[in-house]
Amino acid sequence: MKRRIYLHMRSLEEARELWLARFDPQALTAPEEVATIAARGRVTAAPVIARRSSPAAHQAAMDGFAVSAAATFGATPDNPKLLPLGREAFPVNTGHLMPPGADAVIMVEQIPDPDADPIVIEAPIFPWQHVRRVGEDLVLGEMVLPEGTEISPWAQGALLAAGVTRVSVRRIPKVAIIPTGSELVPAAELDQEPESGRLPEFNSVILSGLVAEAGGEATVFPVVPDDPALLITALKKALADADLVLINAGSSAGTEDYTYQAISTLGEVLVHGVAMMPGKPTLLGVVAGKPVIGNPGYPVSAVLSFEQFAAPLINGLAGKRLEPRPTLTVHPAQNLPSKPGLTEFIRVTLGRVGAKVIATPLPRGAGTITSLVRADGLLTVPSLSEGLEEDRPVSAELLVLPEEIEGTLVVLGSHDNTLDLLATLLRRRDPRLRLSSGHVGSLGGLMALSQGRAHLGGSHLLDPETNTYNVPFIKRYLTGVPLKLINLTWRQQGLMLAPGNPKQIRTIKDLIRPGVRFINRQRGAGTRLLLDFLLHGEGLEARAIQGYDREEYTHMAVAVNVFSGTADVGLGILAAAKALGLDFLPLLPERYDLVVPESTFGEPRFQVLLAVIRSPEFREGALALGGYDLKDCGRILWEQ
Amino acid sequence: MKRRIYLHMRSLEEARELWLARFDPQALTAPEEVATIAARGRVTAAPVIARRSSPAAHQAAMDGFAVSAAATFGATPDNPKLLPLGREAFPVNTGHLMPPGADAVIMVEQIPDPDADPIVIEAPIFPWQHVRRVGEDLVLGEMVLPEGTEISPWAQGALLAAGVTRVSVRRIPKVAIIPTGSELVPAAELDQEPESGRLPEFNSVILSGLVAEAGGEATVFPVVPDDPALLITALKKALADADLVLINAGSSAGTEDYTYQAISTLGEVLVHGVAMMPGKPTLLGVVAGKPVIGNPGYPVSAVLSFEQFAAPLINGLAGKRLEPRPTLTVHPAQNLPSKPGLTEFIRVTLGRVGAKVIATPLPRGAGTITSLVRADGLLTVPSLSEGLEEDRPVSAELLVLPEEIEGTLVVLGSHDNTLDLLATLLRRRDPRLRLSSGHVGSLGGLMALSQGRAHLGGSHLLDPETNTYNVPFIKRYLTGVPLKLINLTWRQQGLMLAPGNPKQIRTIKDLIRPGVRFINRQRGAGTRLLLDFLLHGEGLEARAIQGYDREEYTHMAVAVNVFSGTADVGLGILAAAKALGLDFLPLLPERYDLVVPESTFGEPRFQVLLAVIRSPEFREGALALGGYDLKDCGRILWEQ
Repeated sequence: MKRRIYLHMRSLEEARELWLARFDPQALTAPEEVATIAARGRVTAAPVIARRSSPAAHQAAMDGFAVSAAATFGATPDNPKLLPLGREAFPVNTGHLMPPGADAVIMVEQIPDPDADPIVIEAPIFPWQHVRRVGEDLVLGEMVLPEGTEISPWAQGALLAAGVTRVSVRRIPKVAIIPTGSELVPAAELDQEPESGRLPEFNSVILSGLVAEAGGEATVFPVVPDDPALLITALKKALADADLVLINAGSSAGTEDYTYQAISTLGEVLVHGVAMMPGKPTLLGVVAGKPVIGNPGYPVSAVLSFEQFAAPLINGLAGKRLEPRPTLTVHPAQNLPSKPGLTEFIRVTLGRVGAKVIATPLPRGAGTITSLVRADGLLTVPSLSEGLEEDRPVSAELLVLPEEIEGTLVVLGSHDNTLDLLATLLRRRDPRLRLSSGHVGSLGGLMALSQGRAHLGGSHLLDPETNTYNVPFIKRYLTGVPLKLINLTWRQQGLMLAPGNPKQIRTIKDLIRPGVRFINRQRGAGTRLLLDFLLHGEGLEARAIQGYDREEYTHMAVAVNVFSGTADVGLGILAAAKALGLDFLPLLPERYDLVVPESTFGEPRFQVLLAVIRSPEFREGALALGGYDLKDCGRILWEQ
Repeated sequence: MKRRIYLHMRSLEEARELWLARFDPQALTAPEEVATIAARGRVTAAPVIARRSSPAAHQAAMDGFAVSAAATFGATPDNPKLLPLGREAFPVNTGHLMPPGADAVIMVEQIPDPDADPIVIEAPIFPWQHVRRVGEDLVLGEMVLPEGTEISPWAQGALLAAGVTRVSVRRIPKVAIIPTGSELVPAAELDQEPESGRLPEFNSVILSGLVAEAGGEATVFPVVPDDPALLITALKKALADADLVLINAGSSAGTEDYTYQAISTLGEVLVHGVAMMPGKPTLLGVVAGKPVIGNPGYPVSAVLSFEQFAAPLINGLAGKRLEPRPTLTVHPAQNLPSKPGLTEFIRVTLGRVGAKVIATPLPRGAGTITSLVRADGLLTVPSLSEGLEEDRPVSAELLVLPEEIEGTLVVLGSHDNTLDLLATLLRRRDPRLRLSSGHVGSLGGLMALSQGRAHLGGSHLLDPETNTYNVPFIKRYLTGVPLKLINLTWRQQGLMLAPGNPKQIRTIKDLIRPGVRFINRQRGAGTRLLLDFLLHGEGLEARAIQGYDREEYTHMAVAVNVFSGTADVGLGILAAAKALGLDFLPLLPERYDLVVPESTFGEPRFQVLLAVIRSPEFREGALALGGYDLKDCGRILWEQ
């Protein structure tokens, strides 16, 4: 096994400068001529000159009668001019060509009886009145579009009006994408479950979409196995036609990193490794004067590296302007430490709570594609910084429309499957509204409310001493904050078990039996407190349970551990067990409430949410999930 | 000739409300299932649930060796653990599946000699260290995308990772476009010059592009002649398949307005006439429950009416959010009176001059498609207002990127053909920069500078008394303003004549000859002042010239009048005559200067322009246009 250190490692700024200065996009591809009717979105490669005037002949600009203005001079109501139709007056509609000799149009509204012949003119009109003259819009020989203009639908119209039916534009850059890796199953073959040991290839689909959005056209090559000779062959083939080649994966410092080898065999490696995260294993090279990029394998790295190095080049080749994302000042929900020397990109959800837009970080791993899917924005930690501070304003690049952030209700706290249902129904009722739920545990939700980071908390905290839910915790952590406690649902908590219960787990005591592997929830989760409460009641020691320290953040994640056999049992709600077809041993019903500060309760968008909670659609949907009792659903149970 | 008053005329707000409330986009079309790899840009019709976890099995998160963590417990440099390859340690790269029994990865960097067997472990590692566990990113049964989500490239990746290879999305709405008008030549047949009396049809091309941008798919029907029966037949045919029908033109109150007749025969007219400008002749109807729009015939009206009525409906059918255009606070360059009772949309160019963004109105006629092509923004005059005031801040919708406005140098003044060349070369040198030239005459340019509405003036004003150019006028109109006068070019002024000079025009005196039709420039134009100077010198009376009162705003427009035979002669520059192949009788050379205030001169972007003016490319390009003498080009001739 070889250890390769990143060669030519560069800072993001250095790498970008080095890379973009190396190529002249205008020189890499030649323009082409296309039909104007098919030229929307293309970029002019030269100034476009009108071949005809528009209008090409004088036209009526109103509905009425075309006349010679001179024939109306001196007309008054007492001494009108009479103009016979077909000789001195001609009925015209807007857009009609002016008859020979006519140089003005009288509007039909100004003629006492438009059906008479001759027509009666009671006032003189000026020459060229209500006439669109030759060249009023466009003059033969005039520049219609400058070079470098992206052709809009109305620019197409102007070109056709100017008699320009073909136009010289920048060629759409061709981008070859070569997926590498012996273990990959091609994206097109994923209808079947991949065999064990093989991994789905989908980065080529992501990259193809990004290529299209940058103004290029992607061709995806067949997956190349881990064999340097095959990669060199594929790269040569791709270079024959493409303007830019992306080799996906195979650019880290691992043993199978043949991308470095392939590029350096055929050409030159400019940069190997960029001090950015995600995206470090980026490789930038030149073969036969063409750009070749070794794109990292983790999907988030692949996207962020693409945005820095491939997108600006494709944009340049297409002649398009890189449209920067809109930005917004946001407040991080927590400290975000980051390694100095690396530029880090952090995906965040955003929601306006009071006067501030709160940025809640999503998982930072480069493999979590969902962190991009769920992100509303992107924070950048500059390479000289040690991180971002909680609540200290920073600029976020927006991945959604600003209005979506204004319409987002942020619920932080315990996870429940009905929150997804609620999100769906809320959006269906009012497409401007969104429910964004973060799973930080019941206590985490109360903390977030106390710090003004959420609109709502989701909580099912049982106080064993008083045998009541939530209220004692609210009194302690949200002392004096005016709020309402609104029930969402009662739900069934119990043990989730593999189908058929092969380990014969019957009671909570079975958890300490040797050979029984447990999967737990994270600290601060209400379900974990419930477990501790149950263990305490039975006089059992937590450390006697194998797997007590293995933590997951949601009911579904616990259920998947049992489903996939990495654990035998976990504590969670019936809905999660039912979703995966697991066996379920009910232990007790518990109350799940929403904690609603008055500042949220008074907002119209919360009132919409409340109406959804109390709707028959929510009731039916929740009952279908299983394990829910809606006897208190939507009721205000307590307030302070 | 019939006079039809608009029936059911509505304000823009009323019409929109009535129209959009009439249809439930979700009910008009059913969802469809598409392959995930082809789903980019589509909108989910239901929440999408993960069919697999991702990763589906534990994976190495680093390059190194997969081991059982337990086997490393107790390892120290003095007392290392030795793990034989293939039995207790397995070489893995990032992304590889974990071998059975292994639950942690040691990074290759932590092994003293990675090529040895057994490998030497000098420190213990924790279980699950550097392992991506099952479901770390996506958990089976979890919601991947909520309903109503536009599918991004990375969402495609997440769906494939989750085993979702087909997805239920909103159908792309089908929009039928029916062009009407006996005189129209179809867009696809415009390669040949249209016969006299026929007009080019290009609105269908504009509307098709707008349909695509709104998320729909357009089908253009053959042009329907002015015959109500044929239009009814075409409308029935269109409704068989389309979700929305646009009938273009034929919605004004003219005699050939069969659209009203067709819709009211087959269904119901909701609105006829909307109090907006451009766009008044809009007709909104329902046939068989489907929306049918009679779209106005003038291209600017067609676009603005489309944006108000067709776009939101297509958006809704596609399930897409209407992305509002960004806005910017701007200052109108002049008073913009507008008729109360109408909502008016005014196209403007924008440029930042000092602290303000100045909005200069473009021609307001609904037939001037170039007013959209050249527009940087759109001002709205509300229906209750009598117009916008000069310099009073208003909000503009942006049609270009904000950075384009920041990069725009505004030159107002006299027209010269080299300004187009300069614009092209400037953009080629730095794509962030634009030269926007407004043709308001030399004096108009000096006025604009005095009012802070332009960065540069373009001027060729001859003072007959001193026989000098520009300086006396600057002293009078820009008293005390620090500025530099920089020569752009000397150019040849003369008489532009039809090829072969059929009217035998030899001197300025021939202009007063009976039968000679002249075409003049507008008041304030340097060329007009030159004419007056020449007439004065010959002792001729302006009013003796037939056509002295006919005004055009550019040299090219004057040349087109001569070219098309609507005039026999005009005064202008050689380059314009040469562009259209006209004969040219040179009268005298004149100096064309740029008036550059110090505030502009100090800006880096002006320095780029100056470098372009002094470049060989500009010199060669100008010489090719003809009639230019660049002996003083780029020289600072005078300053104050």
